[in-house]
Amino acid sequence: MEEPDALQELIAHFAAIPGKKVLVHGGGRTATDVAGRLGLESRMVQGRRITDADTLDVITMVYGGLISRKVVAQLQAAGVNAVGLTGADLNLIRARKRPVGEIDWGFVGDVESVNGDGLHALLETGAVPVFAAITHDGHGQLFNTNADTIAAELAAALSAYYDVTLAYCFEHPGVMRDLNDPNSLVAELTSARYRTLKDDGTIKEGMLPKLDNGFRALAKGAQHVVVCKSDQLQFQQPQGTWLTEA
Amino acid sequence: MEEPDALQELIAHFAAIPGKKVLVHGGGRTATDVAGRLGLESRMVQGRRITDADTLDVITMVYGGLISRKVVAQLQAAGVNAVGLTGADLNLIRARKRPVGEIDWGFVGDVESVNGDGLHALLETGAVPVFAAITHDGHGQLFNTNADTIAAELAAALSAYYDVTLAYCFEHPGVMRDLNDPNSLVAELTSARYRTLKDDGTIKEGMLPKLDNGFRALAKGAQHVVVCKSDQLQFQQPQGTWLTEA
Repeated sequence: MEEPDALQELIAHFAAIPGKKVLVHGGGRTATDVAGRLGLESRMVQGRRITDADTLDVITMVYGGLISRKVVAQLQAAGVNAVGLTGADLNLIRARKRPVGEIDWGFVGDVESVNGDGLHALLETGAVPVFAAITHDGHGQLFNTNADTIAAELAAALSAYYDVTLAYCFEHPGVMRDLNDPNSLVAELTSARYRTLKDDGTIKEGMLPKLDNGFRALAKGAQHVVVCKSDQLQFQQPQGTWLTEA
Repeated sequence: MEEPDALQELIAHFAAIPGKKVLVHGGGRTATDVAGRLGLESRMVQGRRITDADTLDVITMVYGGLISRKVVAQLQAAGVNAVGLTGADLNLIRARKRPVGEIDWGFVGDVESVNGDGLHALLETGAVPVFAAITHDGHGQLFNTNADTIAAELAAALSAYYDVTLAYCFEHPGVMRDLNDPNSLVAELTSARYRTLKDDGTIKEGMLPKLDNGFRALAKGAQHVVVCKSDQLQFQQPQGTWLTEA
């Protein structure tokens, strides 16, 4: 969603989803760009950002400000009553600082709890929450937190109140056995088959956190999980890869 | 509120205010600093910022991201159920682009309407709205908007639902006949006396927009308007300069 055209499309598709809905976004490429313009080096390990105090400020400015507020303004223009949040707002998502092991991730937080009652109450007012991938510890500290994980945790928490579909959107139609063959979409992915495709290298890199988080959300109660293109969001039954626990 | 110590104090004083409350903030000094680090020149006319597209991005990052999200996290730590908003969120404050006259202010918006019902509903949930001084036009465009004006418009809109006190906080105890004499506080300022003190130069510069907006809020229905130090906020009847229309 960091290119104007793609964002416009996503906004239109998201606006067309019937029923209550929540959007979770990051903004990594813009953050890297802004950090560079401020003379800060972006240090990534395993595709994840090491977040020192200056980098957290950039994340807070870019995810929590620039992207959040623009997306909300555009959703409002599309008739969606959006509200741009972080996990600190209304104390919706608490996290703890990731323990320092081989790597010190800095101000990266792992989700500890979701305020399901608060989020449910907000959704019942008709508001459409738009979450930047930022959480807090309840003692004044913000954290950079993986957007895929936040989406999974929100889906799991909301499953106590609603029939939830968690949709991970990206540039492919879903899990592809062969990225060059548009007919190789895996329409249903069991956790057993996921392990096999992971072991043989068919599924790798950026897909792994989405799928790991997707299966975790299923295990924690989310009713449906799909990986798809955003143009599928508006359909009751999006085409993509549906995860099943069996 | 842009120095850590002063912010900590403001947070504590604001947290101590009984009843429903709303905070409005800007962040001009930090925006000027971030703009400078990004190689953007800050152009000010009559103390107000000319806001081109790049400057609007900085405002959105700094007011709408960095300051908003940090203040909310700190208010949550102080037991206040804060939610950090711009006027785009929940379509709460609509504005129109300031017409180009002698000066083209760029993406500066003048408040057109406040969604009083939406704000009232949010306050009734127990949430404490924290507004960054940003509005929108309902068609996807954000605007930089004067924080004092936003505060006045919110106070006027909320006067239909509540007995509202609009408090402008700054570094002095109120309007001083002589800034060097702590005993020269003007405890009550009528609009007639305001005109006199403005004409003779006693009241000038930064005070003028606050007082102009304060009297406008009174005229539009706000029940009480006071200019004071933030350490007075927690009192039912803050010491400061109270405006009266008489």
